[in-house]
Amino acid sequence: MAEIKNIGVYTSGGDSPGMNSAIRAVVRTALYYNLEVTGIRRGYEGMITGDLFPMDRKSVANIVQRGGTILKTARSEEFRTPEGRQKAYKQLKRYGVDALVGIGGDGTFTGAKVFSNEFGIPIVGLPGTIDNDLQGTDFTIGYDTALNTVVEAVDKIRDTAESHDRLFIVEVMGRDSGLIALRTGIASGAEAILIPETKTNIEALYQRLEQGRRDKSSKILIVAEGDEAGGAFEIGRLIKEKYPNYDTRVSVLGHMQRGGHPTCMDRVLASRVGVAAVEALMAGHSHEMIGVINGQIAYTPFENAIKHNADIDSNLLRIVDILSL
Amino acid sequence: MAEIKNIGVYTSGGDSPGMNSAIRAVVRTALYYNLEVTGIRRGYEGMITGDLFPMDRKSVANIVQRGGTILKTARSEEFRTPEGRQKAYKQLKRYGVDALVGIGGDGTFTGAKVFSNEFGIPIVGLPGTIDNDLQGTDFTIGYDTALNTVVEAVDKIRDTAESHDRLFIVEVMGRDSGLIALRTGIASGAEAILIPETKTNIEALYQRLEQGRRDKSSKILIVAEGDEAGGAFEIGRLIKEKYPNYDTRVSVLGHMQRGGHPTCMDRVLASRVGVAAVEALMAGHSHEMIGVINGQIAYTPFENAIKHNADIDSNLLRIVDILSL
Amino acid sequence: MAEIKNIGVYTSGGDSPGMNSAIRAVVRTALYYNLEVTGIRRGYEGMITGDLFPMDRKSVANIVQRGGTILKTARSEEFRTPEGRQKAYKQLKRYGVDALVGIGGDGTFTGAKVFSNEFGIPIVGLPGTIDNDLQGTDFTIGYDTALNTVVEAVDKIRDTAESHDRLFIVEVMGRDSGLIALRTGIASGAEAILIPETKTNIEALYQRLEQGRRDKSSKILIVAEGDEAGGAFEIGRLIKEKYPNYDTRVSVLGHMQRGGHPTCMDRVLASRVGVAAVEALMAGHSHEMIGVINGQIAYTPFENAIKHNADIDSNLLRIVDILSL
Amino acid sequence: MAEIKNIGVYTSGGDSPGMNSAIRAVVRTALYYNLEVTGIRRGYEGMITGDLFPMDRKSVANIVQRGGTILKTARSEEFRTPEGRQKAYKQLKRYGVDALVGIGGDGTFTGAKVFSNEFGIPIVGLPGTIDNDLQGTDFTIGYDTALNTVVEAVDKIRDTAESHDRLFIVEVMGRDSGLIALRTGIASGAEAILIPETKTNIEALYQRLEQGRRDKSSKILIVAEGDEAGGAFEIGRLIKEKYPNYDTRVSVLGHMQRGGHPTCMDRVLASRVGVAAVEALMAGHSHEMIGVINGQIAYTPFENAIKHNADIDSNLLRIVDILSL
Repeated sequence: MAEIKNIGVYTSGGDSPGMNSAIRAVVRTALYYNLEVTGIRRGYEGMITGDLFPMDRKSVANIVQRGGTILKTARSEEFRTPEGRQKAYKQLKRYGVDALVGIGGDGTFTGAKVFSNEFGIPIVGLPGTIDNDLQGTDFTIGYDTALNTVVEAVDKIRDTAESHDRLFIVEVMGRDSGLIALRTGIASGAEAILIPETKTNIEALYQRLEQGRRDKSSKILIVAEGDEAGGAFEIGRLIKEKYPNYDTRVSVLGHMQRGGHPTCMDRVLASRVGVAAVEALMAGHSHEMIGVINGQIAYTPFENAIKHNADIDSNLLRIVDILSL
Repeated sequence: MAEIKNIGVYTSGGDSPGMNSAIRAVVRTALYYNLEVTGIRRGYEGMITGDLFPMDRKSVANIVQRGGTILKTARSEEFRTPEGRQKAYKQLKRYGVDALVGIGGDGTFTGAKVFSNEFGIPIVGLPGTIDNDLQGTDFTIGYDTALNTVVEAVDKIRDTAESHDRLFIVEVMGRDSGLIALRTGIASGAEAILIPETKTNIEALYQRLEQGRRDKSSKILIVAEGDEAGGAFEIGRLIKEKYPNYDTRVSVLGHMQRGGHPTCMDRVLASRVGVAAVEALMAGHSHEMIGVINGQIAYTPFENAIKHNADIDSNLLRIVDILSL
Repeated sequence: MAEIKNIGVYTSGGDSPGMNSAIRAVVRTALYYNLEVTGIRRGYEGMITGDLFPMDRKSVANIVQRGGTILKTARSEEFRTPEGRQKAYKQLKRYGVDALVGIGGDGTFTGAKVFSNEFGIPIVGLPGTIDNDLQGTDFTIGYDTALNTVVEAVDKIRDTAESHDRLFIVEVMGRDSGLIALRTGIASGAEAILIPETKTNIEALYQRLEQGRRDKSSKILIVAEGDEAGGAFEIGRLIKEKYPNYDTRVSVLGHMQRGGHPTCMDRVLASRVGVAAVEALMAGHSHEMIGVINGQIAYTPFENAIKHNADIDSNLLRIVDILSL
Repeated sequence: MAEIKNIGVYTSGGDSPGMNSAIRAVVRTALYYNLEVTGIRRGYEGMITGDLFPMDRKSVANIVQRGGTILKTARSEEFRTPEGRQKAYKQLKRYGVDALVGIGGDGTFTGAKVFSNEFGIPIVGLPGTIDNDLQGTDFTIGYDTALNTVVEAVDKIRDTAESHDRLFIVEVMGRDSGLIALRTGIASGAEAILIPETKTNIEALYQRLEQGRRDKSSKILIVAEGDEAGGAFEIGRLIKEKYPNYDTRVSVLGHMQRGGHPTCMDRVLASRVGVAAVEALMAGHSHEMIGVINGQIAYTPFENAIKHNADIDSNLLRIVDILSL
């Protein structure tokens, strides 16, 4: 194993709050160990087009608190082809990059695995996604911030729901997973939570609402966008059909869930794994995602990290039922 | 004019942040002047059904900062009928209410005018709506909070827009008015603002976007929901049609714009007009909305307050054009 | 063991964000299991004076998001005496309370242990304190919120620090512990963190600052209030003495760190342990604090929970050194 | 009057939120009119040392929402001397700057007036200070943000005050003026407000507190730092002396009041006066501060703008008395 001299860092896939904290940690740690650092803009696309630049201490000053990613992110079709990856490798050589830290999710690691296998360049990954859908870490960078963004938005919606005794159906992110819906539903005091992992029982929902209608109290339903019964608009339509006079409103929180200043937890997580990523590369690791499990740094091979596993905690589901009584 | 002894207070129409600050001010001021205060729940509906209760100092403790309205709000069809209003008047008599403060918008004042004319009960109104669409006050209670809610949401969206070099089309409240869109557009650094008061020039918009596409920079469009060219989804469809490969996203901010803790400005405004409302009733005023114009309390007859007048400041429109260059 | 019919709930010691979420969970869970619930105001003081009242579903409506505690909190000297505790027990009997959930910290559990031993009444505790200084749970209710409150305040201070190239010395809570200082320091990108668990090396600090002075860059020091070298003002004095011309400012964040809306994490934690507390009492538990360790509900005898153990993660300390390079 | 070709822009004095929005507006407007723009770092100090650089559209991208000032700010002793100003003028000549926009407060404009008189260079000023202490504008850039920062902090403190039935004495910024204290006091529902413009009546304060002590309710006092009876610690000491058993706490909000993202209002104000400043210079204005009075752009000679005039609205003082009943 050749000694590492220059670490390239990139973000890829959807952006998530805390990616900048992670970039900062990678850069500062590399400099701390007297390594060079090369920033790569727009993920694999920038790797191919050669959008690389040297980073120093100042490159990451005053970014720990910013949402989004200063390295930008993009999807790259070309990187899926051997020719595209060949171009990317040449650019890395040109800039002297001999190891990589990729920050992102499933797609980021899939690309990294293939690329590392083809060219023998060591790569470690950091879990940067709001979806918390990766094995090998208790939490992904951005998840905690997204949860708080949702909860703050639902708090505002509740003001209106309470004032009007209305039912609000709020759709939150989660195409394949109810993780965001589940935690924000508990935290927002939602009356029911509809997620892809469980079969939505529309009849039971009606019954619960029927009671709410009699009580004239406000109600909040949280629906994950990927719920198999449909998104918030479809659920709203079904309820309207059943109870034409019920005062319901639909709100789709949308892209604001991806942005915003990272929370303390996301910044600390990003900082920890950013430091660990550089140290892992120096210690000879590759093909691994660096996460935190039970408070300890954990190294998970890419192939395991990206195996989805909808791990809905049934205890949390039970809590929704009890508390929304 | 008989001396006033018991003031009833109610909120009506859409809720807005700061209504609670106004309620608090009305209650405390009435008590200060040794008057009684009666809370009326759910606006005119509660007046008819007799949902009235005496309020004291404690009734409004610790509410100055809360969104929504502790008195709740509702629409009432029955109040549009003479029989409904007759019932309402009887309930007021029963509780000894001899003057009213109604907090709301256009519909609230229309109802108040008719009711006051029919039964000779003095009523003054306070401008509680996020739309800022009333004559007789520079700002309505809740408008400033809504502006900040929008701006904070767009700040988050911009994080993602910047990271992906994307175009975001953000729809904000304003069925008949571009007031929210205009100010939040300036404050968010939007590239263009589409409002009902001006004819949307889609060709000019395309041209501006074409330039953005070449620059690979992010763009934010703010669209008032009542724009005559359609809401955000329709604008998004038109752009997609013209530029099929353009990376655009649509976000409709929705009901969260009505909630949240009132800003300092909304609380101060609500407190000022709340005090003035009680003092106005004591001084024999009626049929008037109490607002603030150029920093001074202003009294406007209901019929003038509710005459809409889309008063878009052409200077602000000009600023959008200059700054989004 | 007699069957439990009526659970009393109280908060005690310093308030922390999320206590209301915990109260709500205890009340709703008890009702779910057809138990009665009795609220006790002002902790042990209210127990003695008999400030008890029955709670129902509505008692905890719309509080999940509120800071502070609706049950209020107080210190009680009288409860430290056998006579005081005797009075308290009589009041509980009078209201039919046959089990207790106490929410608070060290002092709360010490009192609970003695009381439960004397009168045989089952008591479980929930960790409600911003200090995260209890054994038996990874996080206490309120800690995550306090971390975010500090981080948001330091973000604001950094704006000014950057604009003026100034050194800011920010004091955060933590009389005996640097836990808040450590995590917020990492999250805020602080140049140094001064905590009671490690000997503050003023010379090393000077050297780091000397470099900052030459670079003309801004610097943030985070000082735990209990640091053995003194609080922020004392550190500021020492620096001023050494570098009379250095532009330094001191800011003590103070009591705002205890308030504010709980974060999603604190609300979920509070909800989980609140449900578990009632179920634990029903299952015959007593003398235990209910926490969450590695994502699982954990039961810890009071005597272990309250044994302090300044458990500073040396890995986090190392991260500060690396990242502030 | 020679035609203007290159506008220099700088910030000076204490930073305030919205300065970046103003810088952005100046730069974009100048470019819109095909003028060149030169950024000057650290105000008059940078002018003397020649810290100037050309600004383009990208220089101000994505800054509209950031606190602080990207141009930094500093105090300059040397600029108070004719030699210093001579150096500054030479640097401006060297970079081709033929007009200036200075953003700041009293000191900024005093310097601008002298400099403009000596060298005949046209200068207009923008009111950038959180103190709102300038004639010629209803509001200064940053004031609204500071008000909201204070109000949000006091909301958090109130959570704790309510939970403990405590008295909190909160010190807010305002060395010479109670403007911040007055509005935030109303908005926070403070029981009393102590400001330099009115003689603090300690006896009346005691009486009001005495009542609060009997009611066992929480209380908030807002004290402007420049109050003639002393700051929050001194007031706390006096109260403690009178009521040794009273549970009081002091909190000094400090420097966080200067930072944070500007509110919508501050961004719109900054954008408006930024556009107007460039247009004013082009129209031949000089020696004037550009503000907004009653919604209209207003031009005020520097000598009038900087004449302090503690303009406390006695109506607002009256409101505090009524509402804190």
